[in-house]
Amino acid sequence: MKISVIGAGSTYTPELVEGLLAERDSIPLTRLSLMDVDGERLGVLAGLVERMVAAAGWRFQVDCHTELGAAVDGADFVITQIRVGGQQARHDDTALALKHGVIGQETTGVAGFAKALRTIPVLLGVCQEMRRSAPGATLVNFTNPAGIVTEALLKHGGVPSLGLCNIPVGIQMATARRYGVPPSQVALDYLGLNHFSWLRRVVVAGRDVTEESLAEVLAKAPANVPALEYDREFVEALGMIPSGYLRYFYLQHESLEHLRSKDRTRAQEVMEIDATLLEKYRDPGLSEKPVELEKRGGAFYSTAAVSLIRSIVTGDGARHVVNVENGSSLPDLPADSAVEVPAVVDAGGAQPLAMGRLETPIRGWLQLLKSYEILTVEAAVEKSYRKALLALSCNPLVPSVNKARALLDALDERHGLGLRR
Amino acid sequence: MKISVIGAGSTYTPELVEGLLAERDSIPLTRLSLMDVDGERLGVLAGLVERMVAAAGWRFQVDCHTELGAAVDGADFVITQIRVGGQQARHDDTALALKHGVIGQETTGVAGFAKALRTIPVLLGVCQEMRRSAPGATLVNFTNPAGIVTEALLKHGGVPSLGLCNIPVGIQMATARRYGVPPSQVALDYLGLNHFSWLRRVVVAGRDVTEESLAEVLAKAPANVPALEYDREFVEALGMIPSGYLRYFYLQHESLEHLRSKDRTRAQEVMEIDATLLEKYRDPGLSEKPVELEKRGGAFYSTAAVSLIRSIVTGDGARHVVNVENGSSLPDLPADSAVEVPAVVDAGGAQPLAMGRLETPIRGWLQLLKSYEILTVEAAVEKSYRKALLALSCNPLVPSVNKARALLDALDERHGLGLRR
Amino acid sequence: MKISVIGAGSTYTPELVEGLLAERDSIPLTRLSLMDVDGERLGVLAGLVERMVAAAGWRFQVDCHTELGAAVDGADFVITQIRVGGQQARHDDTALALKHGVIGQETTGVAGFAKALRTIPVLLGVCQEMRRSAPGATLVNFTNPAGIVTEALLKHGGVPSLGLCNIPVGIQMATARRYGVPPSQVALDYLGLNHFSWLRRVVVAGRDVTEESLAEVLAKAPANVPALEYDREFVEALGMIPSGYLRYFYLQHESLEHLRSKDRTRAQEVMEIDATLLEKYRDPGLSEKPVELEKRGGAFYSTAAVSLIRSIVTGDGARHVVNVENGSSLPDLPADSAVEVPAVVDAGGAQPLAMGRLETPIRGWLQLLKSYEILTVEAAVEKSYRKALLALSCNPLVPSVNKARALLDALDERHGLGLRR
Amino acid sequence: MKISVIGAGSTYTPELVEGLLAERDSIPLTRLSLMDVDGERLGVLAGLVERMVAAAGWRFQVDCHTELGAAVDGADFVITQIRVGGQQARHDDTALALKHGVIGQETTGVAGFAKALRTIPVLLGVCQEMRRSAPGATLVNFTNPAGIVTEALLKHGGVPSLGLCNIPVGIQMATARRYGVPPSQVALDYLGLNHFSWLRRVVVAGRDVTEESLAEVLAKAPANVPALEYDREFVEALGMIPSGYLRYFYLQHESLEHLRSKDRTRAQEVMEIDATLLEKYRDPGLSEKPVELEKRGGAFYSTAAVSLIRSIVTGDGARHVVNVENGSSLPDLPADSAVEVPAVVDAGGAQPLAMGRLETPIRGWLQLLKSYEILTVEAAVEKSYRKALLALSCNPLVPSVNKARALLDALDERHGLGLRR
Repeated sequence: MKISVIGAGSTYTPELVEGLLAERDSIPLTRLSLMDVDGERLGVLAGLVERMVAAAGWRFQVDCHTELGAAVDGADFVITQIRVGGQQARHDDTALALKHGVIGQETTGVAGFAKALRTIPVLLGVCQEMRRSAPGATLVNFTNPAGIVTEALLKHGGVPSLGLCNIPVGIQMATARRYGVPPSQVALDYLGLNHFSWLRRVVVAGRDVTEESLAEVLAKAPANVPALEYDREFVEALGMIPSGYLRYFYLQHESLEHLRSKDRTRAQEVMEIDATLLEKYRDPGLSEKPVELEKRGGAFYSTAAVSLIRSIVTGDGARHVVNVENGSSLPDLPADSAVEVPAVVDAGGAQPLAMGRLETPIRGWLQLLKSYEILTVEAAVEKSYRKALLALSCNPLVPSVNKARALLDALDERHGLGLRR
Repeated sequence: MKISVIGAGSTYTPELVEGLLAERDSIPLTRLSLMDVDGERLGVLAGLVERMVAAAGWRFQVDCHTELGAAVDGADFVITQIRVGGQQARHDDTALALKHGVIGQETTGVAGFAKALRTIPVLLGVCQEMRRSAPGATLVNFTNPAGIVTEALLKHGGVPSLGLCNIPVGIQMATARRYGVPPSQVALDYLGLNHFSWLRRVVVAGRDVTEESLAEVLAKAPANVPALEYDREFVEALGMIPSGYLRYFYLQHESLEHLRSKDRTRAQEVMEIDATLLEKYRDPGLSEKPVELEKRGGAFYSTAAVSLIRSIVTGDGARHVVNVENGSSLPDLPADSAVEVPAVVDAGGAQPLAMGRLETPIRGWLQLLKSYEILTVEAAVEKSYRKALLALSCNPLVPSVNKARALLDALDERHGLGLRR
Repeated sequence: MKISVIGAGSTYTPELVEGLLAERDSIPLTRLSLMDVDGERLGVLAGLVERMVAAAGWRFQVDCHTELGAAVDGADFVITQIRVGGQQARHDDTALALKHGVIGQETTGVAGFAKALRTIPVLLGVCQEMRRSAPGATLVNFTNPAGIVTEALLKHGGVPSLGLCNIPVGIQMATARRYGVPPSQVALDYLGLNHFSWLRRVVVAGRDVTEESLAEVLAKAPANVPALEYDREFVEALGMIPSGYLRYFYLQHESLEHLRSKDRTRAQEVMEIDATLLEKYRDPGLSEKPVELEKRGGAFYSTAAVSLIRSIVTGDGARHVVNVENGSSLPDLPADSAVEVPAVVDAGGAQPLAMGRLETPIRGWLQLLKSYEILTVEAAVEKSYRKALLALSCNPLVPSVNKARALLDALDERHGLGLRR
Repeated sequence: MKISVIGAGSTYTPELVEGLLAERDSIPLTRLSLMDVDGERLGVLAGLVERMVAAAGWRFQVDCHTELGAAVDGADFVITQIRVGGQQARHDDTALALKHGVIGQETTGVAGFAKALRTIPVLLGVCQEMRRSAPGATLVNFTNPAGIVTEALLKHGGVPSLGLCNIPVGIQMATARRYGVPPSQVALDYLGLNHFSWLRRVVVAGRDVTEESLAEVLAKAPANVPALEYDREFVEALGMIPSGYLRYFYLQHESLEHLRSKDRTRAQEVMEIDATLLEKYRDPGLSEKPVELEKRGGAFYSTAAVSLIRSIVTGDGARHVVNVENGSSLPDLPADSAVEVPAVVDAGGAQPLAMGRLETPIRGWLQLLKSYEILTVEAAVEKSYRKALLALSCNPLVPSVNKARALLDALDERHGLGLRR
């Protein structure tokens, strides 16, 4: 069994490898192919990975590639964690957005839009390679904006694919720890779109603990989200726990003020963290994931990926929150779109649970954001300037079509998106 | 046949009466009951109305009431054009919104929200009176926010009701004039929610003239909307002509700037116009609608109302754009909600055309605004503070739940809305 | 303006021409092209048509064709009224069905299924010719099974097309006569699929006369339907008036008994009527439609076709019951399927009314029959034996998959349907 | 923990008790209340149950009741397995149907319809008692027609309820045995309505074995279904495995012939089996389930019930095929109706999987049968003759409304159903 990691030069890779090493009993891995366009970084990561494997006393082959073909060839799973343009592009996008008075969040905001336009063509190239040289393999995507990317993969990729986020699994793990139960006894009715989601119900060993979990879950803001406080009465009126990322919408004004008040972008912070991590990774004495990786924000990333692969391999029927084709899970959203919902996973893929009609206070928001996502994918695939303009006209973080246009022109100039009119 | 006008002290009343006088052949009116809580204004209007009727040489009885009971008793049609709190409340609402940095538009904005909360209980009282003393009568509503009000009437009124706006009929009349055809030969595929609508297609005498109408229709901004220019390429990308009121959303940033730059609110302008008009109306020599009424902004108001009543009375099967129960007209919106679409009207009421699936760039917006409208009606009927908060959390003109809460508290204090927690 | 009639050798043609002659003021016809594969019959019909035109003192060119190309070239409307295999095939199909103990009705029964399989390829050939030589022309189809045929035309024809039945217009005309009003004042809420439909509401000049129309409408069975009586209490429980053709379903047992008791098929009767009519038509002294045509059963056929063409030409916005793309008219049926509903017709085509959710007692039946129709079209277009078998497995008149298979094999042998396994 | 069994005089009870005894580790049962209106039979069964418990060396209290109140009081689970009117009523219903030339199948046929009308009021009485004296308890229903009964319980019962059938669990167990895996590794995509269902996919330990399972699953006809052979090509065209009970529809003609050819009804056979079983049960030396029970046809009945209760008690998140509120599992059927689909079961109840759109060849059939079920429940709850007539008009096994009426009158006379006109 072969797993390929595309974008293996990421500082997250040791996290993933740690997870694989822990599952040696259920995942019969024989080969791990690491691929990155940045050969130098790849070398650093590969060195650490090989030391980790050796230290764990396990034997699977690790090989490195800067070309897609050999990396993907014969794979059973392809994990994508790429960042086209690197953190510098992220910085430029968010700074540009702020200059226009707009939140440049890198998943649901303008920076996420720009990232989607850069990323989708590259990932569809991975799919093309998979169809050719790894038929039947499953693509597991971590690349953001994961929801939009999964939408593109489902509609245009032609390979089985699932999108993952570390947030739901993080809530599951924290809840399990709080109640002293194994994670398998924590069931989340988590629903929506990636980074635009709500937690409807938390069940621990068959007991509904939603209300008593509210405060704990609310308190956590992801590392890349301003730690603004949600109004408690509003959340109680909702009757659901909004994702940390929804601060950008429910507290759009305050989030924008917060971003304006900061002297560095999140991208600049991450660049510094990454530099430190890479320095550590180079240490030939290091043969395990360093604790500093936690600052990077991807806790439980490997748990999500590795347990998902285990379910597919063993058909254990476990419940995972994934980005998956909607079908009839959320009947208020298009059946052929990507949604983030609980699913039962086995070798046949992920079968989402029927989550039923959306509550009125969240239904319209999800429908609007899904329109935005659909149009963004169309813009990326068709390279259409007009579709891109329409997409931004559906993003409530962009408060004017004129601003949308100005941003689009600036992004196109910066990244050479090649949009056609 | 009896028609009752609730809110007959409005300066619009002569417009309506002019329309009725022109339809004497098809609408066999014998009694016109004028009702208003402001007896002094009502007296002025009634005087002018009686002079108009006399001048037209027609004979139907005109009577005045400050109580609902006698006004509605035995009516065949009840026309509602009330304004609870008057223009002063409108001014206060929009000024308050601006103070919080929010657009206080009186239909789709915060001022419309406040107006809905004040108005719905009063109109449901009219319905109650109709069920008692005028069974079978049809309510024709002009009171804004007409969409939200129609939603409330359909769900809680228990009487046949239709909501009207003068914008679609205005486009129809202008188009007919431009092409030199009778208005009946102009068919509009106009769809959405009141003041949140798009024109999909314009057909004149069986010829599609949508594209050649675009510039003319776009150029017109209603009197109460900033005359900002739509981006032409964006409108072409949409493939539909957005309503003038959509400037508040597509050009939210610019609209807010514009409102901030004005030294008077629209309400203050209207108060001045109204004072001038009332002065004119008092002139015993005046026996026709004065030209100054046009500044008030309700052109074609009487055309819409009177031709609709004619269709119900005669069953002529004509096509009207109305606020009506959706059914399956727009299958992307709830079946039991109010929508603004073309309908074929006869004695059985209005049967909307099947307008089919909404285009992606407008679908999400309409779904979000409909969520806002549904929650606003629930807040008004249940007098629920939490529902009101949820409603505002779905209005994209309110960029923060914290602001929503501050506005809600201020409005409740100003108007004594009686919301319960 | 040119109208082409495909299958002009039909004895119905004089009916159609009579209608065209009556509409000379609104339909500016300059050329009528008659096409039939049977040159001899075509000659007879063309002779009568020319005498009718001359007698009416109108001048439009009449020309005859046995090839499609010239007949269709440059047409504005193409009317299709073909019968592939003639009445003999109809006789064979219905007799074969009876032999297997099955109702062989030629629209919703097995004979209709066989006719669809023979007819759809021919009509798609007409569409192909239209796309080539008469772009923009509208196809008006009368060929049975009109519902299934329209489904095929909408999905695979690539030309604007509408399907017509003479039943709804017949009810409209009879009701108008009964109440002494012009037909335009009769509005029918008629809905379902062709020959599988219900009348929900009858409105005359704005008054609901459904209940008082029930007995009269029920009493009429089309000429090709056994005159069995509907149970009155059942119809009242339904709250709608079932089409005469629904006897085959609601009274399946009795209909089968009736068909078994007859010594001749309807096809044999029609062959005799046709022979008599053709003899009459040959009479050079005849220059008008003979009364004997009424026995043929197509009353108001020309009214339906000609008034529909008038609405398209003039954009009069009149209401017609047509077979048309569903869209959101009947949201319980697929949006891309053909349904028979009221529509407002203008130059842009037919816009169906939003008829809303189907009542429970008819919903399931319509959904089942629509499945049958969809699969029948797939079988015809893909020439698929398996799809044909699946189609018949969804037809409740065929009480066994084994019988379905036996019938399918016999039909394939008889007609050389060319189904592939 | 207390479990109540309503209808405990059934010869199936030992099967259920055997299952409970096997799960002593996961189901902490302290009290088993057996209730039946037939005190004599109840005594026989209770005796055997007590001997079985003693033989197993487990201690929970067993008590007997002929009144509902004490039996249900304080229960955690109430299992209903009643048969109103006994096998004699079943015999009478099926014989009556046959006399009218109609299949009288006791779930989807006329006998099932009659049984529903007798049973629903009794089970709603159980629910009433549960709401009063066992709040929070879950009702697990085995009473046929299980689908219609669950529909009634969901809409009118007011208690959490799930309907069970032994067929899906039987397929699961047989498949597990065939492949030598534990049943938890067999996942069925089983969908539809009770006894009107299809098997879309069989997955064993993550491998799709649908095609290779086809022959084995098809070969099995339930004991109460004629063992007619399905046409293999038809099943392959379907691409799904039809339930054994679908023979009544796909082979309606042959099933009717078969039933006519038999000299005894299934009810008469069962009466004989039951008599033999009861004789055995009386034997004081018997302390385990006798092998003869297998002839009764309820294999795996206890497996279904007991494993379901275990999932609710422990929240193990296992996958069960149950009759449950649809929600968005099968979006082609009403959301508030009962469907039979896979669900993940925990303490919060059963969350069905999103099974997506139905395939065309089965969609219409399911929609028709669901209409029949909805109307049957309405007839039972409203005691409405007209609704009953409408229900039967939607059952394709009843080939005439006249026959429906005759059957309805005869059933009403036989059972005193108390239908009102």
